Amino acid sequence: MDNEKFSQGPCPVARALTRVGDAWSMMILRDAGLGITRFDQFRASLGIAPNILTRRLAALVEHGLLEKRRYCEQPPRDEYVLTTKGRDFLPILLAIGAWGRQHCEAPATSRTIDTDTQKPVEPLVIDRLSGRPLAEMNLKLVPPPAE
Amino acid sequence: MDNEKFSQGPCPVARALTRVGDAWSMMILRDAGLGITRFDQFRASLGIAPNILTRRLAALVEHGLLEKRRYCEQPPRDEYVLTTKGRDFLPILLAIGAWGRQHCEAPATSRTIDTDTQKPVEPLVIDRLSGRPLAEMNLKLVPPPAE
Repeated sequence: MDNEKFSQGPCPVARALTRVGDAWSMMILRDAGLGITRFDQFRASLGIAPNILTRRLAALVEHGLLEKRRYCEQPPRDEYVLTTKGRDFLPILLAIGAWGRQHCEAPATSRTIDTDTQKPVEPLVIDRLSGRPLAEMNLKLVPPPAE
Repeated sequence: MDNEKFSQGPCPVARALTRVGDAWSMMILRDAGLGITRFDQFRASLGIAPNILTRRLAALVEHGLLEKRRYCEQPPRDEYVLTTKGRDFLPILLAIGAWGRQHCEAPATSRTIDTDTQKPVEPLVIDRLSGRPLAEMNLKLVPPPAE
């Protein structure tokens, strides 16, 4: 995608997708949400080529979704920890997962469980103000105010 | 991403991302949600190369998010209309947009308005059962039952 055009453009969806709009980046965030922090763990979990993983981790650090922390000085080793910005993306991944479970059928998928109730969560995107599911609302797009 | 591995794997996030896990596909869905149906409209809106647009539209049709409909016989012309599966992805795009607006700062972005109240919507991912925001819940991942 044309990052130069979209990364500063008026559409917040496009702007977000220039930061996390590829499957590997989202899968890395998924794994980070599951507690993975180290290069070799990401590599083993995802089966991703090391050069691609290096690039994606660097981009996620550059865009502020992951923070690189030195955990060993000798030899030098870094780990990658979710920032608030990265953590805020996790509910979206769960919503994507719910869509995947509903629409990309068999075989059975893993589930995410509410540890308080032991029930599977059912992600739903609502409007915070009205409490209504977005899917049921009448919406329109309004451009940003002229500068 | 290794579609063969992930498209039938246990993780519903990965499974979904093999269908829509690239920025162009999501931008096409965004435009479809705004009412765009025709090739030239998508091309003009996105500034996307025709061969890439052709491929992405075909994949979205193949995966059942868009339906191809003939709207003109002479010359033959098709339009692309969201299916239920495609429409179900739109709230996720709004949640991605809300993240983009919150975290990928200036300049100002467009907003999505509730046409009933004229107020901007604030997408929030909750658990349908408990009503709680996912970001505040304690969650754990459970693998699918053994076959």
